[in-house]
Amino acid sequence: MKNILLASTSSLFGEEYLAYLKPEIELLFQQANEIIFIPYARPGGLTHDEYTAKAVSFFETINIKVKGLHTFDDQKMAIRQAKGFFTGGGNTFLLVKQLHELDLMAELKDAAESGKPYLGTSAGSNIGGINMQNTNDMPIVYPPDFRTMGLINFNINAHYLDPDSGLKHNGETRETRIKEFHVFNSTPVAGLREGSWIRVKEGKVTTEGIHSTRIFLPGQEAAELEPGSAMDHLQ
Amino acid sequence: MKNILLASTSSLFGEEYLAYLKPEIELLFQQANEIIFIPYARPGGLTHDEYTAKAVSFFETINIKVKGLHTFDDQKMAIRQAKGFFTGGGNTFLLVKQLHELDLMAELKDAAESGKPYLGTSAGSNIGGINMQNTNDMPIVYPPDFRTMGLINFNINAHYLDPDSGLKHNGETRETRIKEFHVFNSTPVAGLREGSWIRVKEGKVTTEGIHSTRIFLPGQEAAELEPGSAMDHLQ
Repeated sequence: MKNILLASTSSLFGEEYLAYLKPEIELLFQQANEIIFIPYARPGGLTHDEYTAKAVSFFETINIKVKGLHTFDDQKMAIRQAKGFFTGGGNTFLLVKQLHELDLMAELKDAAESGKPYLGTSAGSNIGGINMQNTNDMPIVYPPDFRTMGLINFNINAHYLDPDSGLKHNGETRETRIKEFHVFNSTPVAGLREGSWIRVKEGKVTTEGIHSTRIFLPGQEAAELEPGSAMDHLQ
Repeated sequence: MKNILLASTSSLFGEEYLAYLKPEIELLFQQANEIIFIPYARPGGLTHDEYTAKAVSFFETINIKVKGLHTFDDQKMAIRQAKGFFTGGGNTFLLVKQLHELDLMAELKDAAESGKPYLGTSAGSNIGGINMQNTNDMPIVYPPDFRTMGLINFNINAHYLDPDSGLKHNGETRETRIKEFHVFNSTPVAGLREGSWIRVKEGKVTTEGIHSTRIFLPGQEAAELEPGSAMDHLQ
């Protein structure tokens, strides 16, 4: 049974890395004393080692060992043998390109579907969706494919932002962008505000955290789902 | 000699479509009494006809006839025979996908390089750069290639926004995103604020408009170029 947590962001504004999720992460990984960290989204151009060190130092506080996926010679085997996974945020185009080019997307999907705990934040959550086509990231590299793991039946828009009526700027709002997506695609989209996450466990998919989640379906007005609501109907 | 205007936005906040650019557009198209409009970026999911009607009604006010590129059976021939071009904004992924799939990117590049006046706004300006990898748009479709016309030796980030220090949100700033681009790419990037544009005429490339333009080069601090400054050195 899948055991998955897909969070909008790794950190709340002004807080320590992963601090707000700590109790949830302890529950998610209660059967895993070591996990693999996937650093390929490289936020701010951090090296894989630098980014992994950041994950290591959080997970030390809850007695979980972390190894960077990039340190293994046989990365497919590493995924097969792992007890759990954490994919950090950064740039989704980079992350998806790397996972496809190393032929690891399907491997990671299989592992997460087999019930090994999976934690994603931001870009690491986007790849839990059907495809990466609701990312906010800049296309700094060209991935061979936009499809991702499809651990849930919808896409995620991480760091979802409500329109700012005070902003005198003509860039599109997030809602406008997602509606444009639905002119060409039928996949549902969850606009996940910072502090919210998707939880998959015991055969159920729910939205959790401190805010409601904004749900976009093609041809319908957007709707809000309160924390604790089931999302299984989205497909 | 190239005769090109690439604007950050079609409209200033609260103003009519293209109003702030009207005197510049009259100068750009002074030798052209009819032009082709390229509607493929489809803002807000507008149909090609609806979007073209919007361009038609602006250009009527300066006595220029407009035809939508989508209305021609032979679009390559239409580009070859046209007197000038306007590519409107919307979604850059959509625009680039359509131009590549119809095999029109090179045709449009050749026409603009031969000296036919070209106006771009937003997505229509992005395709004047080397590639579309500094767009802010959502990847709602998958283009077969990110490369664009390269009418200038750098990329454009349209609707450039300075960091908002009051925003309690962890999404990356525009500057951070462009710096991440430079971890993997060496193409210079012009952060073009709304109300600014790039002008190519009489063999010179300058930045114009009401704001300075923020210039990003790999491995260097970002710098500001005042309106009227030459940009020919960027490459």
